[in-house]
This record gives sequence, C-alpha cells and structure tokens, in this order.
Amino acid sequence: MTTVERFLGFEVTDIRFPTSRWLDGSDAMNPEPDYSAAYLTLRTSRGAVGYGFTFTVGRGNDVQAAAIRAFEPLVQGLEVEATLADLGGMARRLYEDAQLRWLGPMKGAIHMAVGAITNAMWDMRARRVGVPVWRLLSELPPAELVSLVDFRYLDDVLTREEALDILTAAEAGRAERTAAVLGDGIAAYTSSPGWLGYDDDKLVRLCREAASDGFRQVKLKVGGSIEEDVRRVALATKAVGPDVHIALDANQRWGVGEAIAWMRELASFEPYWIEEPTSPDDIFGHRAIREAVAPIRVATGEHMHNAVMAKQFLRHGAIDVLQIDACRVSGVSENIAMLLLAAKFNVPVCPHAGGVGLCELVQHLAIFDVIAVSGRPDNRAVEYVSHLHEHMADPVTIGGGRYRAPSAPGFSAEILPSSIEQFAFVGH
Amino acid sequence: MTTVERFLGFEVTDIRFPTSRWLDGSDAMNPEPDYSAAYLTLRTSRGAVGYGFTFTVGRGNDVQAAAIRAFEPLVQGLEVEATLADLGGMARRLYEDAQLRWLGPMKGAIHMAVGAITNAMWDMRARRVGVPVWRLLSELPPAELVSLVDFRYLDDVLTREEALDILTAAEAGRAERTAAVLGDGIAAYTSSPGWLGYDDDKLVRLCREAASDGFRQVKLKVGGSIEEDVRRVALATKAVGPDVHIALDANQRWGVGEAIAWMRELASFEPYWIEEPTSPDDIFGHRAIREAVAPIRVATGEHMHNAVMAKQFLRHGAIDVLQIDACRVSGVSENIAMLLLAAKFNVPVCPHAGGVGLCELVQHLAIFDVIAVSGRPDNRAVEYVSHLHEHMADPVTIGGGRYRAPSAPGFSAEILPSSIEQFAFVGH
Repeated sequence: MTTVERFLGFEVTDIRFPTSRWLDGSDAMNPEPDYSAAYLTLRTSRGAVGYGFTFTVGRGNDVQAAAIRAFEPLVQGLEVEATLADLGGMARRLYEDAQLRWLGPMKGAIHMAVGAITNAMWDMRARRVGVPVWRLLSELPPAELVSLVDFRYLDDVLTREEALDILTAAEAGRAERTAAVLGDGIAAYTSSPGWLGYDDDKLVRLCREAASDGFRQVKLKVGGSIEEDVRRVALATKAVGPDVHIALDANQRWGVGEAIAWMRELASFEPYWIEEPTSPDDIFGHRAIREAVAPIRVATGEHMHNAVMAKQFLRHGAIDVLQIDACRVSGVSENIAMLLLAAKFNVPVCPHAGGVGLCELVQHLAIFDVIAVSGRPDNRAVEYVSHLHEHMADPVTIGGGRYRAPSAPGFSAEILPSSIEQFAFVGH
Repeated sequence: MTTVERFLGFEVTDIRFPTSRWLDGSDAMNPEPDYSAAYLTLRTSRGAVGYGFTFTVGRGNDVQAAAIRAFEPLVQGLEVEATLADLGGMARRLYEDAQLRWLGPMKGAIHMAVGAITNAMWDMRARRVGVPVWRLLSELPPAELVSLVDFRYLDDVLTREEALDILTAAEAGRAERTAAVLGDGIAAYTSSPGWLGYDDDKLVRLCREAASDGFRQVKLKVGGSIEEDVRRVALATKAVGPDVHIALDANQRWGVGEAIAWMRELASFEPYWIEEPTSPDDIFGHRAIREAVAPIRVATGEHMHNAVMAKQFLRHGAIDVLQIDACRVSGVSENIAMLLLAAKFNVPVCPHAGGVGLCELVQHLAIFDVIAVSGRPDNRAVEYVSHLHEHMADPVTIGGGRYRAPSAPGFSAEILPSSIEQFAFVGH
C-alpha cells in the first residue's frame, strides 16, 4: 500500500446525559445542567482513529456539533502524517480560517470546535505511538513544544525564547518527576459534595466521605444566598475537619462590588480560593476583587476563552490560580501556551474538570505541566467530580485523593459505544 | 379577538452573497469574504413581523443560523406586548440561559444569536408604533433607557445613577439635534476604496470619487506588506487631497510589538486612526500600542464581544475611538450600555458597518447616540461601504458624505424577499 493516508469525513454525535434529573452539577448559574458532549470520531483512510469532543451543559450541544462539522471541509483529505507532525499549525489554520473566524474570533463555539478537532488529532497521534498523551507531551523536546505555540498575540509578554528557557529549565528532573507521578499520581480536589442543589445532610455526608477518601481540598458552590452560603460553608468546614481546604465557586454570579461584599461575609472561614467571582472577561474586575479579598485567593479559567486572555490575567496580577480547561480553547497547543504563561508568572495551574470527560482529558495536561513545564507538583490539584466516568472507555483512576497516571494510549477521550448509542440526542 | 398575541416559531434563513468573486471586502485577515446573513423572520399570532440577522463572512453562516434556532423554544409562545415592553430583560433571559450560555458566555455565535433575536424584536416594536428605531430610542425617557441596561458586570465603572445622569443631561437639546439630523443627517466615512484586493488604479479612482462625493474620511486596509502599505497610503493621501482624513485598518493582523513597529513606518502620513491593530481581546495590548503610536489614535470594536470588554477598554485608556457593531453583541440594549460607557469616558463612537445590512442597522444607533446619549454630532462618523444595499428593503441613503436619517418604521433590517430567494444557501 503506497497510497497516502488521509483524514476521512467527520462523524459528529450529539450526546446528552440527563443529569438535571438528579441536580448533579447544579450551581448558581447552572441550576439544571444536562452534561453533554459534541463528540467527534476522526478516522483515516487506513483505519486509524482519534476521539475529541466539546463539553456543553445541554441545550446548544447541537450548535456545537454544527460548529465542529463546519470545519470538516478544511480537514477531510489532509495528509495524516504531516498534519499530526504539526498540530500547532493545524490549530492555527483552523482558528484563522478567514470565514469561520468571524464567529469568534478565537472564542465561543467556533473556537471550542477547533479544540475538539485538534484534541482528536492528539488522541490519534498518541495512539499511533502507543503512549498516553501526557507521556507523549512530556517526552517532546522543548524546541518542538515551543513550535506548537502561536506567539503572534503573546510575545509582548512571553517570547519564544522565554518559553524555550522555561521548558529547557524543566528538563532537569523530568525523569524523577515522571517516576513520582507513575508511583503516586497527582493531587486531586473534589467538587462532588458542594452542588447547590444538595441538601445539608447530603453535603455533610459527602464532605466527610471526601476527607476520609484522602482529598485535601473540597469545593463548594456559593452565590445563591449569603445566609445559606454561611450555613453551608460552616457545615462543610466542620465536616471535613482541620486538614482539608474548602474552596468556593461563585460561577460568575456577582458584579465586582458584590463579590467583594459577599466574600467579606465568608472570609472568617478562610476559604482556599474564590472561583469565578464575576464575568470571566473582566480582567480588571478580578484584579480589584483579588486586591480586596486578599489573602483569599482568586481563581478562574474554565471559561477563559483563549491564551490572549490568560496572558492578561497572569501578567497583570488578576488571579492567584489558573484553571485551564481541556475543551474551552483550541486544544493542546493553546493549553501549552497557557501553561507556559502560568509558569512564567509562577501561578499554579489547578485545571477545571467534571462534566463528562473533562477529568479524563485534563489529567494529561496537568501531568505534563508537573513533569515538563512548571516542574512543580506541590502547589496544585486537578478538579475531580465523580459523575459519568462509567461512560468513558479509559476512565480516570482516583485513589487517596489523587489521580493515578493513565496508561492507555491516547487522550482518554473515547466515550463507550454503548453509551453513545444510549444517550445520542435525537431532537426535542 | 381577545386571544393574547404570542410569538410564533422562528423562520431562519442562511443567506450568502458571493462577494469573494469580486474581492469586495478583502482585508489582511479576510482575503475572500462571502458576505452573509443568518436571517430571522419573527412573526406573531396576529401577523406582526420583525426582522433581525447576524452578519457573517460566509462559511459558518449555517452554524450561526443553528445558534439562532437554538433559542426558539425560549421565545415561541411568549406574550408579545410584555416582551416588547422589556427588551433588556428579554436579552438578559436569553444570554443567561443556563445551558446555552456555556457556548459563550456572552460571546461568539451564541451571543450574536441573541442580538439577531432582540434586534428583530426592536424592529417589530418600532414598526408597531410606526417610527424608525432611532426615533423610538431617542424619545424614550431616560429612566426607561436605563432600565434596558444590565449593570451586573458594569457597575464598578458605570452605575445606574451615572447612566441616568448622562441621559438626563442629554435631554437638553434633543429636539434641536433631532431637527439637525433630519435636516442634514450624520457624518459617514467610506471604506469602499481601500480593500486590499483592489489594484492601485482602482484605489486611486475610488479615493477621488469619495472625496468628490463629500466624504471627509476614507479608510484603507493595511497589514499585508509594509512596502505595499506605504505605497498605497501615499497614493490615497495624494488622491483624496488635504481635506480628507485617511484611517487605517489592520484587521487584527499584528502582535503588539509588530503593530507599533509597523505604525512607525506609516506615521509620517498622519493616519486618522489605526483600527484593530491586534487581537480584539487584548485590552493591555491596545493600551500599549496607543501609548506608543500617539498621536495616532487607536480604534476597535467590531469584534468587541460584549459590554464587559467595552467597560475595560474605555475605563483603562486602551482606545481613542469605539466602533460598536449592531450585530456583534446581544442587541440594542447592550449597545446602549456601550454608548453610555463611551459617553462617560468622552470617547467618540464611530460605528462599524459594511458587510450586508450593517449600515442599515447601525445608523439607527449612531443617530440615537448623537441625539440622546453623547449629544455630540461633531467628532464621530459611521462607516459606509457601498455594496449590497440593493438587497435591503429600506436601504441607507447617503448624500454629501452623510447618512440621511431613515424614515420608514422599524430597524431597516429587512432583506428583500427576491434577494432571499436568489441567495438562500442550500449547502455545498
């Protein structure tokens, strides 16, 4: 066979899990989410396969699926080897498409669609060499990692040379940190106890379980009512005991002044961080909140729509914790840019996860960060939520409050065919 | 008939004009646009109608149409009178939909879809009272205008009380300014001569025509190559003569340092402004460019995805000119917020237009700004491009380099049925 291997057309499926029935995932802005995936199966003319998806919370998953399909003509027929060898270039060609970029640019449904596609290509690339994505990335030479990053809008703050220096410095100790991750995993924190829709008994029970399961951090949703927040945070603090941090998450509920006032009421509980206190677009607002609520830390990132925003949040002291998301941006290469920016400013990366499949994907990026970018395992943890892992072909393994490093080849992105069949959405 | 009037289901059409065949609209980031509209016809149970659309540049117009359709279940069946009486609340309920907002939030395709819907409702409301939208808005009491604005994420910079003060102050002279606009229109500038795809002869000929047509400002696309830009700007400067300003538009082509270096090469031509020098998300980048290239002014806004971004650009001195777009944000109410922010910081609003239908819509907002918000007709102009007006049911009227105030009821948003029939896109 000397025929060149090429990408076939997209298979895109609208998958929706009816999680709203159980109020899993309920917060101040998402009272009733139906965790969903606009799911891409990418095949080649020689039968290779890669999986990628955009996570959504229900309605609109069809729009997201349409956004992924819109890129099919730009991918179908491309040579597979050349494409997989330059996935930074592939991402850029997709998000710079002269017509599709109008729907962003570099934000929202069209940008997340690029992420689903390039993540599927990373999955395929890692499968072909038989390693998990975290290992593939952790073993790439710094020069190749830097070549993945689009510096056009970043180089006033992070130059290619600085990025290379960060990655080269992290080469020392890569092997030791890899061994440590293989032995003991990386830290997780759990958001499973703290959804707004749970009653007090369930909150307390799940907090106690989290502490006894070994988690050193639990996260609670806040922002519904201040009286309820005070009561719930007090209950949780007592339930987890003195050795477990409690972080809070307002899911963009507040304006700037409101966030500051609300956090004053909760300050006595010494929350580990306040997450998404206001609009994810408000760099100056986050900085004002951060200055006002210190020493409480400010975290955001699950809706940070691109690396240009990360650049500004980090360079201008607007956040203490960066929460990358595997599916929000244009894929692995843009997340590498965000990890590099965080490393430059010595801001810990504590990735957003949960939903469906987000834990599976982002653990690879977090492990890569620990081994090859920040080089620091000590001051960071990956979000963990206990739902829906049974639908993943390579589900995360959690033990002692830590993610165990995945070993299967790929990006752990595949959803089980039986789950796809059961939860494929066929319209209203 | 005592039946309550309700909204019917959406009629959404994917309309694409093959403008790329003539290189109209070509710039450094959009070499071959096909000007398109994801077009909504909104009808009621009593036969009332309103039109709205999102402008796109071709591919992806189907995704945008899907984004509009995704809101149909939230609108169909609503009471028309109550909805039209609170269109700020309607916009907020749409962009805060707990599931659909994940695709933004407040940005990209899903946010522009809200704009298409609420703009159609403004069109309907104005038609029902028999006035153009600019007059409807200009005659609303300040208290009602303020009630349209969502201050949640804005009130650290612009409070409801400040907004009311701005509008109340502008009540003085409303009648005189209305008379002046009815007599002499508002200033326009033209971008028709300056597309990158035009050769030198066409550039010079169109520049001369613009000057003789009465335009006092022409805009040229730049960012392809510095040598060509120098040659083209020199040609245009000579062609238009000393009384016509030449503004430049880089369409996000540059990084921050690159923008500064490039503009140094063009500074001797004393450009009237440099537009979109870098990523539309880069507030700090625009500020750095502005400081470096002064006295050349910095303009942006056609991709400014919401009022939270406008708040930051304006409050922190990142721009000299705000270029609102009628279809980029969630509709009239969010544009009112942006006009108020600009008025607070005394930054002139020179709206983005062109494409298809953008001139028709945004002229209403610009006239409203002059009459009832900034109260200043003197230091602002609305972009004008000469293409595709023949497809609009109520096309703009230009004379002497000025927009004449539209007089037909509504938002001038209707595309002719014959054009819809001819240019409805039926797939690849």
